[in-house]
Parts: sequence; C-alpha cells; structure tokens
Amino acid sequence: MPELRRDPIVGRWVIIATERARRPSQYTQVPAAQVSGLCPFCPGHEDKTPGEVYASGRHGGPANGPGWKVRVVPNRFPALKIEGDLDRQAEGIYDWMNGVGAHEVIIETPEHGKTMGALSQAELTEVLLAFKSRVLDLRNDQRFRSVLLFKNHGDAAGASLEHPHSQLIALPVVPRQVLSELEGARRHHELKERCIYCDIVGQERKDRSRLVYENDDFVVLCPWAPRGPFEIWILPRHHASSFEAESRERLALCAQALSTALKRLAAALGNPPYNFMIHSNPLREAPSPSYHWHIEVMPALTQVAGFEWGSGFHINPVPPEEAAEFLRKVAG
Amino acid sequence: MPELRRDPIVGRWVIIATERARRPSQYTQVPAAQVSGLCPFCPGHEDKTPGEVYASGRHGGPANGPGWKVRVVPNRFPALKIEGDLDRQAEGIYDWMNGVGAHEVIIETPEHGKTMGALSQAELTEVLLAFKSRVLDLRNDQRFRSVLLFKNHGDAAGASLEHPHSQLIALPVVPRQVLSELEGARRHHELKERCIYCDIVGQERKDRSRLVYENDDFVVLCPWAPRGPFEIWILPRHHASSFEAESRERLALCAQALSTALKRLAAALGNPPYNFMIHSNPLREAPSPSYHWHIEVMPALTQVAGFEWGSGFHINPVPPEEAAEFLRKVAG
Repeated sequence: MPELRRDPIVGRWVIIATERARRPSQYTQVPAAQVSGLCPFCPGHEDKTPGEVYASGRHGGPANGPGWKVRVVPNRFPALKIEGDLDRQAEGIYDWMNGVGAHEVIIETPEHGKTMGALSQAELTEVLLAFKSRVLDLRNDQRFRSVLLFKNHGDAAGASLEHPHSQLIALPVVPRQVLSELEGARRHHELKERCIYCDIVGQERKDRSRLVYENDDFVVLCPWAPRGPFEIWILPRHHASSFEAESRERLALCAQALSTALKRLAAALGNPPYNFMIHSNPLREAPSPSYHWHIEVMPALTQVAGFEWGSGFHINPVPPEEAAEFLRKVAG
Repeated sequence: MPELRRDPIVGRWVIIATERARRPSQYTQVPAAQVSGLCPFCPGHEDKTPGEVYASGRHGGPANGPGWKVRVVPNRFPALKIEGDLDRQAEGIYDWMNGVGAHEVIIETPEHGKTMGALSQAELTEVLLAFKSRVLDLRNDQRFRSVLLFKNHGDAAGASLEHPHSQLIALPVVPRQVLSELEGARRHHELKERCIYCDIVGQERKDRSRLVYENDDFVVLCPWAPRGPFEIWILPRHHASSFEAESRERLALCAQALSTALKRLAAALGNPPYNFMIHSNPLREAPSPSYHWHIEVMPALTQVAGFEWGSGFHINPVPPEEAAEFLRKVAG
C-alpha cells in the first residue's frame, strides 16, 4: 500500500509508492519508452488496461471495446490506491496517512501518432469534457479534497508511453502548490477585494507585451515571472474558481485557446517536451471570489538542478516578453 | 543586466538571466558537456576563468597561477551581476528588482577526474573552509540577504563542466525554500520551545531505521518524507543555525560525514548524478534558536514531471528506511 508522508518542517507531502519501486541498481537507468506496436492505449488493445471508467464517442457496442473517441482508465501502476478508508497516524513527531487516492489515465484520441496539439478543436473539447466528467464523479467520493489534472508530453517531460494521454490524481489533501496559490490569492482579495488573477488578465490585456492569444472567453499569456523558457498560462477571462463548473460552450473556447498554445509551441520549438497542469479550487470548497482556475503549460527545456532545489528560485534565460512575441508571430 | 521578478500570487522569485539566452530553436538541444582537455578549471588554465577571489594551498607564487588546492572564481556566465545598487520597482501589479548578486564557482581540487566523493577528509575540509570563507566575505556586502551553496554532479543533475566544482549564489532576497523552512521551524519553536531539527536528530538517533551514519558531531540520515530515492540529509548534532559559524574542527567532522554519504551513494548506485545544497540562516539574522543549518543531498534519479510541477508533491518509489538500510550496509 502506498503511503503519504508529511515533511515536518515545510509541510510538503510525499507519496511513497513502493509498488512502483525498482532495485537500487536500476535507478541509474531511465526506463525505455514503450514500443508503439504494443501500445496498450491503441484501439483493439482495450483489454491491456484496467476496465474503463469513462468513454465517449462509442455509439452502442460494449464497454472496453473499440469505437471510442476519448477513454479514461485507472492507471495500471497507480501512485495511490482507490480502496480503503483514510487512516491518519503519528510516528513520533511525524505525520503519516495511507495512500488512498485515484490515479487515472485519460486517453485523448484513438490515433497513436496524433499529439494533443494536433487534435481539432472539437476533439480537444471532448478531452476537456472527459476531464470535467471525471472530476465531477470523483468529487462524490468524500475522501478526496482535490484533483490534479496534468499531462507529460515527451520523454524529457516524464511521459513513459507515447500514445497521447493525460492523467489525473485525486488526493485526500490539497497539494502545497495549490494551497500556496489559494493563500496568495486570498491575501490579495482581503486587501483589495479583487481577484489577483482577474487583475493579471486585466493588466496583460492592456499591456499586450506578454499576451499570446485571446478569444471571447480565454487568454493565453506568458506570465510575468515564468519558471522556465516559454512557460504559458491559459486563464478564463471571466472570474471562475472551478474548472469543472464550466459549460460545454466555455470548454470549447478553452480548447481553442489550449490548442492554439500547443500548436504555436510545437511550431516555435519543434514539438518540445512539455508538462501542463490544471489548477482549480479544491473539491470541498465553495466557489471562491479570490481564486481563479487556470492551466499552466511548462516546456521541459531547462533542468532543475541544485540551485532550483535548494532555493525554490528558477533561472530562466528567456524573458516572457520575448517568448510571447515569438509565439504571437509563429504560424501555429 | 539580469532581472529578478516576483510571481504576484505565490511570491516565488525568478531570475531572468538574458545573458545566458540562446535562440528559441536551440532550446530543443541540451548543451554538450565540456571536453576535458580544454577544461578551464584544470591547473595551468587559470587564465581561462575570471580572476580568483579565494585560493588555498598555494604556498607563495602569484595569484591565478597553479599550485592551489581549492580555488574560487566568479562564474563566467553568472546568473546575477555583482555590480550596481539594488533597484526595486513596480510594474503595475508586479514586482521587479535588478539582478544584483554574486555567482561563484568553487573548484574543489586540481585533479580533473577526482570526484568530491573521492576527496580525502582533509581535502574535503579545505573545500568546506573555502565555502565558509566566501560566505563570511560576501556577508560584508550589505546588499545580500542570503547565500546558497550548492553542487550539481553529473549531466543529469545539471553539471555543465566535468571538473569537480560547487557553486554559490548570493542573493538580495531570502529564497522561498529557505523561508519556508525558517517559518516551519519558527512555528514549531513557538509551540514547543524546541528546535524541530534537534527533535528530528533526537528521534532518528533513537529510532535508527533511517540513520545512515553518525560521528561525534554530525548525523547522516534519510529524511522521513524524501522527495526522491536516496535523498540524504546531513545535520549537526549540536544546535547551530549558521554554517559559516562552524569551527575548523567541526567542519572536519562535517567533511567526514559528507564524504561518507557521497562514498556510500556512489557505491550503492554506481556514481549517480546528484545535487546538494547547504541551507543556513539568512545573513542578516541573529543566531536562531529555531533554525538549524544542514546539507541536503538529492540523487537525480527520478524526473520532475507534471504532477510534481502542479502539486509540489513528489512521488518516491523508495521508502527512506530501505534506502538507509542499503546505505548502512554498502561499503563506501
């Protein structure tokens, strides 16, 4: 059973996922990427994954067969386990929790070679609707406090399978990174009675130097203090704290913005490895006047090394204004 | 001139180091490691680096010539610049500072092929004394609030030159990671009137399951909630908030502990890439009853991907008890 352990000083939770362990000698090698002929995510191989928890586009026909457009399955090597009650214990001065949670894989398309950036707006909207549907379902499970949706694209960004997919992890705690955003946003709201993300959207739409793209409902921008080259944020222009509360119409506009961002990144940098994550209000919270959901896209172009580990600082050689200018001009 | 920019939500500072920039197309390639024949850190090539700010072991003979044991030089491609007054500005809702700071390289040995783990205790003590001397010197510069000492060993851990070296960055702010430790330690002290690191040392010396090694003054342990496999902490057994206040005698015992940790890591995992960093009380603070300086060693064996970026959580497949047992048994 995986465990959750809390660092007693800074409060950072760590998942000790022993079932993913290798022998010490194996840590010196990075596991090889999957050969595509044996891809468990391709149609016809549905029996190679745990049974699906969601599928769209399959008009009739049995579950776990082909015909789907988007398919969601539990991760075969989950970081957390879905079974069991939450158990919290002390070990001397330390805090421990059993590793209860959900770890699912969202297979974005039946086409093995079609990247998320190459999906049509309609196809990407279906992916976002799958995200939404899974969050709404997992929210019914009272053990969970947050769901993190994320994607690793490319070897260097941690993708172990090539077939386009995203992941979600439902957690019995709210992660530190999200807590830190919630707290910063709450402080700003106490002071100003405004949402800091709305302030950012306002300033960026006026200033335009870091703006990459906008449509009626979403902006794509390079943030003021990016952790690495070509970091991109996608934010709703309207104030909204929860991703899963968005309508199909709004998610279609979100898909248009995300798709534009990914296409331009691919054109600008030659299909770079990247990570993205969706930050949204925790599951048990009421809609928040201070927090604003958003997507963060981080191309994996620089390394996290001693300085970054030790400081939490990042050294970024590309000003966001230059990255945004480049992304505005490139055909995507 | 580099810039420091603050994320308006979470307060994370980022260094925009434009002088290290490459063209966008170049981000898809990782720079190649240095060929050793042209190593600027080898004796006889002293003119290939900026003029030294520290050297030990050279009995007579001019500066910037051979004969040294440890040599410290400014980084040729610094993330921050040493010249100029601090300038703080607002840009709308954002915070900006010019990138004033020091970025130095500590060349640990004249021998190109001798890793830090292979240094004798006496040699490693000289390296720690160089660290101490540089911090004491930079502390006189009132613009700086903190100094981070760190090391990247191996390509995968971000080392761009093979010749054994560490780095230091002096900053006009206290990094978020250190602030977060200071705050956690202060909270614990307010509640208990004890140092949390002293509590950890006490519990670990009693429990012994995560203990790797100890001598009269230092412990080497795998922490309760490690961010990755085989993370190791080295802590003084006595309460002390600042690294640079330690005596030569104590630094010799620290060298013994660090050397043991590095030798066992190398033996256990086959000379793995790793980062280490020294966390110490900020320069302008009085000795603290709640904070405790220490070294964190992080083997670079797992990737930081979407989940880690998005959550601040880490997934670690190796329990620290297993790592510690392995490191206790291995000959190092």
